[in-house]
Amino acid sequence: MTSDVRTVEWTGDGLRLLDQTLLPGRVEYLVARDVDTLVDAIRRLVVRGAPALGVAGAFGVAIAVRQAAREGWDDAALDAAIARVREARPTAVNLSAGVERVLPFAAEGADAVAAEAQALLDEDVRGNRAIGALGADWILGRAGDRPLRVLTHCNAGALATAGWGTALGVVRELHARGRVELVYADETRPLLQGARLTAWELDRSGIPCVVQADGAAPSTILRGLADVAVIGADRVAANGDTANKIGSVGVALACAAAGVPFVVAAPWSTVDLAVPDGGGIPIEERAEEEILTWAGVKTVPDGVGGHNPAFDVTPAHLVTALVTETGVLEVSAGVTPRHADRPS
Amino acid sequence: MTSDVRTVEWTGDGLRLLDQTLLPGRVEYLVARDVDTLVDAIRRLVVRGAPALGVAGAFGVAIAVRQAAREGWDDAALDAAIARVREARPTAVNLSAGVERVLPFAAEGADAVAAEAQALLDEDVRGNRAIGALGADWILGRAGDRPLRVLTHCNAGALATAGWGTALGVVRELHARGRVELVYADETRPLLQGARLTAWELDRSGIPCVVQADGAAPSTILRGLADVAVIGADRVAANGDTANKIGSVGVALACAAAGVPFVVAAPWSTVDLAVPDGGGIPIEERAEEEILTWAGVKTVPDGVGGHNPAFDVTPAHLVTALVTETGVLEVSAGVTPRHADRPS
Repeated sequence: MTSDVRTVEWTGDGLRLLDQTLLPGRVEYLVARDVDTLVDAIRRLVVRGAPALGVAGAFGVAIAVRQAAREGWDDAALDAAIARVREARPTAVNLSAGVERVLPFAAEGADAVAAEAQALLDEDVRGNRAIGALGADWILGRAGDRPLRVLTHCNAGALATAGWGTALGVVRELHARGRVELVYADETRPLLQGARLTAWELDRSGIPCVVQADGAAPSTILRGLADVAVIGADRVAANGDTANKIGSVGVALACAAAGVPFVVAAPWSTVDLAVPDGGGIPIEERAEEEILTWAGVKTVPDGVGGHNPAFDVTPAHLVTALVTETGVLEVSAGVTPRHADRPS
Repeated sequence: MTSDVRTVEWTGDGLRLLDQTLLPGRVEYLVARDVDTLVDAIRRLVVRGAPALGVAGAFGVAIAVRQAAREGWDDAALDAAIARVREARPTAVNLSAGVERVLPFAAEGADAVAAEAQALLDEDVRGNRAIGALGADWILGRAGDRPLRVLTHCNAGALATAGWGTALGVVRELHARGRVELVYADETRPLLQGARLTAWELDRSGIPCVVQADGAAPSTILRGLADVAVIGADRVAANGDTANKIGSVGVALACAAAGVPFVVAAPWSTVDLAVPDGGGIPIEERAEEEILTWAGVKTVPDGVGGHNPAFDVTPAHLVTALVTETGVLEVSAGVTPRHADRPS
């Protein structure tokens, strides 16, 4: 049911995480059996991606309940440990949502919590599969039922989710139908999620892929080398404005100029109807060191600073389609989440 | 008359090049006294930037003539060596133009060639100063006579020219008038000319600067953080289509969307009236290793290739102004090089 990438897996007594900080050079796993180890892994981005963090948070409660029994914690100590899991990273709403989802099962013991966390994982994969099928149908209907050249940015794949992917879920489905000629993966500076993670995932799945500098994406599109762009999302406002990894809006501008569909693939849970438009989405500024050095080598002269926004906002009029597990919204044509029915 | 950066300097028996591959970590010079060394230096980007390549090509003929005399080459061997200099890189018209400029002096010997090459160098600096003044006048007239936030891409500075700069010549002039608040320098993957070279030049000249990922440029512009974008050019077609470092057209698209002027600063020699539009400009594809590794660290899994075009083409309708030493052409408004008078 999942891809062969095991991003997050419950072992019965702990959570096994594919260590994404070591990819693509090394494929190593870390098993968290205590809260300290899990919280550290989340902070260091051993596991990352909003849906994957949700699942990790849910299993984190199971880890805490087991540790409490093992070490004789009182309720206050258990509550504090669960709070540390929930707050391991501040911005991902999925992390706290995953914790909340399983909390009602804590009184029944770790196995009950783990079973509910596994249900969340399975739902994520099922949702991703639905996104993949709906997205592939829409894209082939729009771009033509033939092998396509797909451009993507950052990593919205198995590594960012419970094991299948949103944007890369669409690519996986297209590939299963024999409809992928080539994927252009933007390397995605500063942290190279495209070069390190997307290329690794696609290569393992036998999907043809080349990596390019982020600056190459607009001309790749304008030169007619890509038939469609597919990306994930960190948050979608009610009007369809979409926050995603820095560099996404440049891809969207080029798609609009070239008449190429710009497709956002994300679970419905990413849509935040409480935020009317992109102006209400906060843009995280990350540490300038990510820009100023590379592999331990200083690339910028001492004394010069960095500007490092982690996300940008693509205005709704540039989003050709928003694909969720509930259907496809043609946002630039006026069909926005606000007008869509929330799934029951 | 120049900045304090000595990019290209004739020593009397060879060409002294500031090795731009080592900046900003080390300031070292390479002296080319034979054609092989010069061609290798051009290919490795020890010297780069269209105007600097023109000057290097012109002095390259002097190097070839000296080597021919020293090693007893016949005319065919000399012609072949000069052709290798001319063709060391394909996109910038300046390299071959620099060679052609001094060829008539080859029969008079290396000193006569070097004197003509020096005249070209001096003209380049004078031209850059004129570009700076004309560009600053135009920008302050358009964007307002106040300290501005300027975005630039790649390096079109003293390091790309004979010692002053085209895009950064405009920035230097704005700074001299007290009209630079901040420069956003795109890092410019894959070779980081913005992070390594532009930031180094600006910092040396006391001009405030921050470096950002190339993917950040469109959102910096759309968020209203930049008042103007100024870039150089490798070749400008007769209709105003402009080839420049990969990533430039993404900046141009964002400027058009935000109503921010997109200014190309380049010597008139960059304009190639023989090429009617951007479709006729050859785009150099560089080695994929530039994308796949950094500082000896493989960032992309084995088996995955790279797509590495070095330049892109910005269509004329996105070029607000083309600033040459002869004046300012408002290209997107219909004033193209084809309609301008060639300077006498």
